[in-house]
Parts: sequence; C-alpha cells; structure tokens
Amino acid sequence: MKKIGIGLIGCGTVGSGLIRNLPKADALIGQRLGVQLEIKSIAVRDPAKSRDPLPTKPIQDWKKLIADPAVQIVVELVGGLDEAFQIAQATLHAKKPLVTANKALLAERGQELIPLAQKSGVPIYFEASVAGGIPVLKALREGLVANQLLGLHGIINGTSNYILSRMAEAGSDFATALQQAKDLGYAEADDRLDVDGIDAAHKAAILCFLAYGFLPKFSEIPIEGIRKIQSQDVGFASQLGYAIKLLAMIRPVGTDQIEVRVAPTLLPLRHPMASVHGAFNAVGLIGNLSGPVQFTGRGAGPDATSSALLADLAEAAKNLRDHSPGPALPKPSAKMKLIDRNASVGRFYVRIEVEDRPGVLAQVAGIFGTEKIGISSVLQPEGHGAGSVPLVFLLESASVASLSRAVDLISKLPNTRAPATILRVEDLT
Amino acid sequence: MKKIGIGLIGCGTVGSGLIRNLPKADALIGQRLGVQLEIKSIAVRDPAKSRDPLPTKPIQDWKKLIADPAVQIVVELVGGLDEAFQIAQATLHAKKPLVTANKALLAERGQELIPLAQKSGVPIYFEASVAGGIPVLKALREGLVANQLLGLHGIINGTSNYILSRMAEAGSDFATALQQAKDLGYAEADDRLDVDGIDAAHKAAILCFLAYGFLPKFSEIPIEGIRKIQSQDVGFASQLGYAIKLLAMIRPVGTDQIEVRVAPTLLPLRHPMASVHGAFNAVGLIGNLSGPVQFTGRGAGPDATSSALLADLAEAAKNLRDHSPGPALPKPSAKMKLIDRNASVGRFYVRIEVEDRPGVLAQVAGIFGTEKIGISSVLQPEGHGAGSVPLVFLLESASVASLSRAVDLISKLPNTRAPATILRVEDLT
Repeated sequence: MKKIGIGLIGCGTVGSGLIRNLPKADALIGQRLGVQLEIKSIAVRDPAKSRDPLPTKPIQDWKKLIADPAVQIVVELVGGLDEAFQIAQATLHAKKPLVTANKALLAERGQELIPLAQKSGVPIYFEASVAGGIPVLKALREGLVANQLLGLHGIINGTSNYILSRMAEAGSDFATALQQAKDLGYAEADDRLDVDGIDAAHKAAILCFLAYGFLPKFSEIPIEGIRKIQSQDVGFASQLGYAIKLLAMIRPVGTDQIEVRVAPTLLPLRHPMASVHGAFNAVGLIGNLSGPVQFTGRGAGPDATSSALLADLAEAAKNLRDHSPGPALPKPSAKMKLIDRNASVGRFYVRIEVEDRPGVLAQVAGIFGTEKIGISSVLQPEGHGAGSVPLVFLLESASVASLSRAVDLISKLPNTRAPATILRVEDLT
Repeated sequence: MKKIGIGLIGCGTVGSGLIRNLPKADALIGQRLGVQLEIKSIAVRDPAKSRDPLPTKPIQDWKKLIADPAVQIVVELVGGLDEAFQIAQATLHAKKPLVTANKALLAERGQELIPLAQKSGVPIYFEASVAGGIPVLKALREGLVANQLLGLHGIINGTSNYILSRMAEAGSDFATALQQAKDLGYAEADDRLDVDGIDAAHKAAILCFLAYGFLPKFSEIPIEGIRKIQSQDVGFASQLGYAIKLLAMIRPVGTDQIEVRVAPTLLPLRHPMASVHGAFNAVGLIGNLSGPVQFTGRGAGPDATSSALLADLAEAAKNLRDHSPGPALPKPSAKMKLIDRNASVGRFYVRIEVEDRPGVLAQVAGIFGTEKIGISSVLQPEGHGAGSVPLVFLLESASVASLSRAVDLISKLPNTRAPATILRVEDLT
C-alpha cells in the first residue's frame, strides 16, 4: 500500500473536520484505491493556540511545510485571497499538487493562478470549492466529458436557500429568517458573502470555467442577493406557482458569449430545483447527450467539505502513485466574453407599490405595452387600506434594457409610491 | 494528440447512437483530455444488412476484432448474456480494456466475470449500465470514495417510472399507461424486464457491488414489479401524501448483511425522489460525510447511453495513454450476505377488499394488533354499491414475517373478498 504524505495549511473548522474524518476515510480509500494518506505537517497562524490533539505538532511557517520533502500534496485551507494565493503559487513552484476548498481564490485570482498551474504542469484539485458534498466538478470534468453543455444553473449557497425556505415555509420575513440562520450556524456574523450572492458568484465562475473554458472577470458578473426579498414576494410567487431561489445561471449565448449571473429567481414549483429545501444545494445542467441532469446535496459544513477534500486527496495520491499527470485545467478561451448585462433576455417578476386609484393598472400595463413586453399574469390583491397596493406582474421574455426603460417610466407615474422590486423568472425547460 | 483505436461489437440502437455521437464528442474529449478516439473495427451479427454508413466496413467475427492490434479498447454492445460473456472473457484474455452497457451481464454473470477481470488486471468500464446519462458510478467510485455508505435508493427503470407517472397524472390504469409507454418507444414489445423489476434489480446489484463490494446472487434478490398497481392505489397513496415509485433499495443491516430489493414503494410527496417524473431516473445515497446526495437525469435512450459510453471510452483512452491501471473492481467481500427476506423490516401499505358490513374494520385492525403492527392511517372510502369496499392501511414498522402472518389471517376472514395488495413505504429520512 503506497503511503502519500499530506501537508495541511490552515486548521479552522474545515481543517479540523478533515483531520477528524481522515482515519476512517483513509481505511476506505485504502480498500478502494490502494493508497494511504498520511498528514506529515500542519501549518497554522498560531501554533500555541490550544486545540484538539493534532496528528503532528503544528508549525507556523507554511513555506517550511511546502519545502518539506515528506509533504507530497499541499492542502490550502486558510481561506481569503492574498495569503492563499501566495501559498498556491509557492506550492505550484515546488511542483506539488494543490488541494483547495477556496472558491474566492479560484474565482478572483484564477486569471493569475490558472496560467501558473498550466505552466508548472502541476494539478490543482478543487472539488470542495463548489457544492461541498456533491461531486459535481468531477461529473463536469469526467462523467459528462463527452457533452457539449447547453447551460448550467444552481442553488449554490446554502445559507440563502435556508433563509428563502424559511420565508416560504414559515412566512418569516427576511430579517427573522436571517437571524435563525445565524442561530443555527448556517450564516456567519458577516453575512455579506452569503446573502448578497458573492459566494454563489464565486462558485458560478468556477462552474463556468470548467464547462466553457472561460473564467469571467469577477467584477463583471452581475450579482444580486436576497436582502430585497419581502415575504409578500414569496407569497405572490407561490400564488403564481413559483418558488423564489437564489439561482446562479450560466449559459452560452451564440458562439462566443456567455451569460453568468446570480439573482433571486422564480422557479416553477413543479421543477425539481424548486423542491431543494433548507441548506441544501443543487446544480442542474443540460448536456447535448445526457439531457438534463440534477445533483442535489449538502453544500457546506465540515463533513460535506471533508468528503470532497478527501476525494481530491485520494485522486491526487493515486495519480502520484501512478505517475499520472492528473486533471488538466481547461485552456482559457480567448474569444469568449460575458454578454452585456443590458442585452440579457429573460422573463421577470415586477412588483410595484401604487396608490389605489382607478386607472393605475391601465397606465402601468400601457407602459409595458409600449416597450413591447407581454404580460403573462397580474396579481392585484385587495387594497389594505393604507392607500397603497402592490401590483404584481409576471412578464413574457424581455431584455434588461427594455425592462429598465419600462420600470423607469413606471417609477415616474404620479401614482407610483416606491421603487419596483424586479426578480428573474426561469422556467428551466 | 494520442489516438486510441476502438472496436465496437454490436450495432443496434445503442451502437448506432455511439457512432453518430462520436465525431462531435471526440472533438470535446480531445480539447478536454488530449486523447482522440477512433473506431477501427465493427463486428455485427449480419454485415450484409443495410444500415447507415459506418466509419469502417463491418465484419462478422468478433474474435477477429478483439485480436486486431489496431483495437485497443473493446466496446461490447450485443446485450444478452451468453455471447456477451464470451466477448467479455475474450477481451480480458486479450488484455484489452472492456467498455459495456450490459447490466444483465454484470449482475447475472459478475460472479464469474469479476474474478476474471481481477486476475487479468484489465479494467472494465460500465458507467452506461446504470442510469445512462447520470454519472453515478463514477460518483460512487471516486467522488464519494471517502464515504462509508449508509444506504442507496433509486428510481432506475425509466419505463416503469413513465407508467407510474402517467397513472398519477392522468389517472390512467396500468394497461393504458403501458400501451402509451410502448407507443412512445419507452417500453419494449417484451415488457417483462422493465415492468417486472428485473432491469432495476440488475442495476441495484451493480450499485450494491460498487458500494459494498458485494454482488448478491441475482436469483436471491426479492423483486416485485408494478403490474399489480391499480389506479385506486395511486389515488389512495396520493390522499395519504405519497407517490408510488418502483424503488430499488440497498442498505446494510448490521455489519455483514445487506438488504437489496426492488418493489413498488410509497415515497412522501415532499421528498425530492417523489418529484422524479416521466422516464427520468434518480439515484439517492447517504454518505457518512457527504450526507444525502441525489442524482437525477435520463436513464436510457441512445444519446444518454452515448454520454456514459463516451465518458468511459475517454477515461479508458486516457489511462492507456498514461499507462495507468484504471479503476479497480472492489474485492468481493466473503462474509457479506443478503438478509433473509422474511427478516426485512419496514413500513407497508395494505389494501384489502372486504364486504361492506359492520365490524369488518375492527376485525382487520384486531389482527394487526395481535401481530403488534401499529396502524398509522386508515382510509375507507364510501362503499361503491357493489357490496365490496377497499380498506387501506398505512402501517408502522413491521417485519415481512409478521406482516405475512397478519395478511394471511386477514385473507381467511369470511368478509375478505380478494388477495391483499401490499406495497412498501419508505420515508427516506
């Protein structure tokens, strides 16, 4: 049985989970693949900090860990961007395979990291960076390798999905559901990465890179979070036959453009994506041969993340034993670019607060008509006495540009009370 | 770019699909993995038969194909058992990797084939044998390699799922829904493999082997099909909050027993498995680290099967190029065995036709009580005038043995009209 030495940099929740889960997993990996993993070195920011017993005395200097000849694979679990990038760079220079769960690193510094990895000929394994316990990157790279991908979509932030599920099931408002997510440990004290869609966009960028060989410039991805969702929107969506999910969409437009976006999106209740509840994640894709495929499971937590990290470690170890090169990163496509956000075409849900006066519906509907935007459903609940009523429209397909013009005109009507709430609608057919 | 020569034995629907899909897929595989696939030889039963143009003139003798030095990987697509086994055997003897979609071969002749493969050191690739377009075997072998599996379950026969979906959605009876499945090409003229659960059991045996290193003796797997399902059962299940699906269940019992079965099963409507509609397949599993994971997609059809065959061919070609041994089959476990079918414990749905007389419900409920089987719900619709009424029970957990005793006693009651319909219930929590 070939033993492969591992070096672990960073020992927070994810690192401790990995150390705790390794012994049992290692026995299974040994039986199944004939390789064994052994932690040879651990580097942490503060080696003096008291913690559960570690398999080896921690050191502080990760450069020593990378240089240690007993360390054959480096696992980067420090998170963040700058130090993680330096660790990745040093690992590749040392010609050692890198295993990481760091989605921000790949999504935001991939433009530098990918060429480095390709030049060094050293593989990077990052299954744990997207949808933790679901082996979706391996499916994209290998199981579906013969498919041209017609599009991908996913619920890839468990915290947001937990919050939206609570809002739908318990009728909670956003603030209450967010607090529950924090109480349960699903949301961090700093909730911005999760709730504002940034974490989902990191993962969407990685999926886009694997599926299309194109890593979008991160700052150019349109990202909307779920803070603006009111419980009345969840209720109206449900009346119309839809659930609201924070959805990442990735799809080619023509031959050299790609639409990548993260936004709260109405999905038909009947679609399997709509029954992904609580902190679960799901990734759907459409292959030209496979047809639609959906993967559902836990996207986060130390155990689900361990499942992915250990699979990567097992594969990296097996490739080292077999002197195999390991998975190659796609060659970045030079001609591919993101579509202009105003050119994005799709269906929308629009809620407007108006004064409860005769003729207002006709005015608003008239503006959509002028912009040639069809209306597929309207909801106008009975006035709640405050003089203002919500008007909800489910629209036919329109470009962001024409929708924005219409909404701009509507906001200038004398009877419009508040900025419109605009959500995406995807039928995913 | 390394070119790898393929030999194709059998050129029916699946083989023709593979040939049709190869050129486009090969370009993608070349970009993504740096290998190219080239069909060097095709063997068919009747080379004179008129067919679409083939990339090479077909021959009749598959032994020549296997011996052809240009053929580096053999794809067996003849189906059936005896000839397929001979082809597999000859391929392994020739030390050439085998790619197959033949679930019957692996499930029914695996006892002979697996030791042969292990002795020869040559890999067998069989992703296409289970759930076509869903790369679930790769996920089990690699993506979830670090997990101990706490159980698997799946809807792995698309024909049965189409029929049950029609029965639920359109209220059709079994015969009408079966005829529709035949008209749409989802069911073969000989419908027994699909409708009687044999095809699903073949796939369940393969999943069991990969998950637990145990290939059950095929004739010992308890298999029930869907012919006995009446539209009233679908209706009653729905009233109780359940959908009926032909479900394969695989789960360890204690340390050295496994329960493997295929049976029509009530699943809670809220569970994601219950919203797998039409000809779609789904496989769910619970890993000790990953938690519950579900894969959903197309299980059959020439394109979905091509997706899996081409992924296997790409992997086999890459392993040949890299001189990698390829995936090893699990070492069969000597101590593992199937549980006794009477020892199987679970929840059941029981429908009994009784004469519409006072006291009958009490008698039946009394018998369940005597056998210490709890009743969680009862449905007794108003009599339809014919003097006989259905009595529907949703039971708490019981062994097959005690359920059989109870049903036997019930059938001997003077007011019982017809044999009971007994279905499994799984909450999949």
